[in-house]
Amino acid sequence: MWKELHPLGRHPGTGGYRRYAWTPADLECRAWFRAQAEARGLACETDRNGNQWAWHGDPAAGGAVVTGSHLDSVPEGGAYDGPLGVLAAFAAYDELRGRGVAFARPLALVNFADEEGARFGLSCVGSRLAAGVLTRDAAHALRDADGVSLPRAMEAAGQDPEALGPDPERLARVGAFVELHIEQGRALALGERDTPVGVASAIWPHGRWRFEFHGEANHAGTTLLEDRRDPMLTYANTVLAARKKARLAGALATFGKVAVEPNGVNAVPSRVSGWLDSRAPDQGTLESVVAEIERAAAERGTRDGVEVRVVTESSTPVVEFDHALRDRIAARLGGAPVLPTGAGHDAGILSAAVPTAMLFVRNPTGVSHSPAESAGEDDCVAGVTALADVLEDLLV
Amino acid sequence: MWKELHPLGRHPGTGGYRRYAWTPADLECRAWFRAQAEARGLACETDRNGNQWAWHGDPAAGGAVVTGSHLDSVPEGGAYDGPLGVLAAFAAYDELRGRGVAFARPLALVNFADEEGARFGLSCVGSRLAAGVLTRDAAHALRDADGVSLPRAMEAAGQDPEALGPDPERLARVGAFVELHIEQGRALALGERDTPVGVASAIWPHGRWRFEFHGEANHAGTTLLEDRRDPMLTYANTVLAARKKARLAGALATFGKVAVEPNGVNAVPSRVSGWLDSRAPDQGTLESVVAEIERAAAERGTRDGVEVRVVTESSTPVVEFDHALRDRIAARLGGAPVLPTGAGHDAGILSAAVPTAMLFVRNPTGVSHSPAESAGEDDCVAGVTALADVLEDLLV
Repeated sequence: MWKELHPLGRHPGTGGYRRYAWTPADLECRAWFRAQAEARGLACETDRNGNQWAWHGDPAAGGAVVTGSHLDSVPEGGAYDGPLGVLAAFAAYDELRGRGVAFARPLALVNFADEEGARFGLSCVGSRLAAGVLTRDAAHALRDADGVSLPRAMEAAGQDPEALGPDPERLARVGAFVELHIEQGRALALGERDTPVGVASAIWPHGRWRFEFHGEANHAGTTLLEDRRDPMLTYANTVLAARKKARLAGALATFGKVAVEPNGVNAVPSRVSGWLDSRAPDQGTLESVVAEIERAAAERGTRDGVEVRVVTESSTPVVEFDHALRDRIAARLGGAPVLPTGAGHDAGILSAAVPTAMLFVRNPTGVSHSPAESAGEDDCVAGVTALADVLEDLLV
Repeated sequence: MWKELHPLGRHPGTGGYRRYAWTPADLECRAWFRAQAEARGLACETDRNGNQWAWHGDPAAGGAVVTGSHLDSVPEGGAYDGPLGVLAAFAAYDELRGRGVAFARPLALVNFADEEGARFGLSCVGSRLAAGVLTRDAAHALRDADGVSLPRAMEAAGQDPEALGPDPERLARVGAFVELHIEQGRALALGERDTPVGVASAIWPHGRWRFEFHGEANHAGTTLLEDRRDPMLTYANTVLAARKKARLAGALATFGKVAVEPNGVNAVPSRVSGWLDSRAPDQGTLESVVAEIERAAAERGTRDGVEVRVVTESSTPVVEFDHALRDRIAARLGGAPVLPTGAGHDAGILSAAVPTAMLFVRNPTGVSHSPAESAGEDDCVAGVTALADVLEDLLV
């Protein structure tokens, strides 16, 4: 399976993946999913929000066990984030068939649409729509960097954008959802743990804030330093302040995306926009870290003659995974470690609607969202076995 | 004249100009130049490097007095930087005709091609080629952000790119070149001076350096701060260091252009590239400021686990304008103030080949390279009168 999926959407120069939602690379991945389902005699369907489901048994029977992840990627992403969970779903299904397990409930393997949000700026679009967290109107308003709207992109891919919306009937048929994912840190690899598979306890609260620094465009070769209102200085100071505030609070804060106007070598910028991604163990810490960063930006802005505006683009509260399911899984896996994560997932969105759990596979370097992201082959196999064990436990 | 030129290449949303070399907006400006020349019965020609000349008298007579500037713009540029010098050339010519001046030498009005370098990244392409400072091969290697090469862009505009190259015969016919330009600072507007027109003494040495910060792409939501190699931190620290080092040395240093990879909100960048523009009163100061900024970047890079590479993209030594011409002009203008500038100009390039001078028109706010750039109408008229006086003095 890896072999066929591996080259799709992979940039030959960087080795990074560019599988953005509803692009040709994504459509190839979706065709791969259909082919894998059909090869196993599973009934493949695409729901109103573009998520793909492959069914063993009658969906209408209810109480289904569902597993899967996503196939789209961030810009220059790695091979594992998303695809490992979908591949493991198929491999665990094969394992269950090999074991001769009797399926007392329906099982579905799933590929959620547009999890990374790399193209339209919002993550987990497929699961957010299904869970009713994202409205159809808000989804219709999403645009990519070229101005192409989500509905137009979906239409071009043969999907009806008018059908987008909450899908309570489908979710009501799900008894439990388990998502396997490569760990996006190295907690499982650290000394005292060093174990191939773990179980998620919670997803940290997190959000995205757009910091706009408004200064005054000017000639870089002639304007006296004291006459400038240079927003790049305020931005730079805010980047360093964010790192410091996050470190002191035990939180995370990152400026990974920047836009500069006019972005000319010999022009003092008129505007710099920087996107802050911040996460923390609890909501109070997150809010105080972001407030401190805003305060630092405003203070420096006053000094630089730069106006600072902050727009909250998204804010996701803490997700506690279903405790009963989590404990059952950890026990079934012989006391696998239980750990939180800072990353959002479809499982985090769905946890509000159905009992949900996540398995993590050890990532020795912790590198994620990069072509260098990797997991050992033995660990992937251990992940598949663990997933099969969990599914078997839930299915019978 | 302003009325017809004003709307060309102006963005309706921002009010800024986007007259990039050899684009449709630039070609409209060039057509405007031809029409102005023809309306006055001046012989219009385009030289091998795309510069436009409008001649009164026989070019072959030699010892010509030449005036003009450029019509292209930076991204979101103002209405005056460049165009004021070309308009003033035509207006001063009209004034000389009105005065009934007898032309003892030929006079040419000129529009230099691609002065700003907004599209292909190198400034003063037309004058550099003519003066032999830029070779044809190097010009052929220039590419814009979309990968279009300079020769292809020129060809599409009906210009033969094979003809590019030094033009010593043409330059040998020039007895003096005078460029009028809006001041790109507010030295003329400051208290003790406060006068509409000044004369240039020198152009500060200046250059462009690309700082590349190489870190490691990673997930912004899961990677521990201490596991990161985040090049945005090193970049931010370098921006602040550049400002400080320049301030202490009485120089200028600006980071106005940035490129981030992958530039995703939830990704620690793998690479940040920042372009430093720096200028100083003398070569030694410039070199020491840039060296100090490089040292600060490398030090912080070590702390961040980020590799710093610095590439010199251009470096232009100090230009001292012809002293005899400068003194003659200042005297003719009744002791107009003589002042240096940090900005490069075609006049700076040509000064190595022909006696060259510049006139500056007062800029009350000092704002430049921005839609807010402006000069008062009375000052523009004073600039035209001064230019006419200078040309009359040189022509007879």
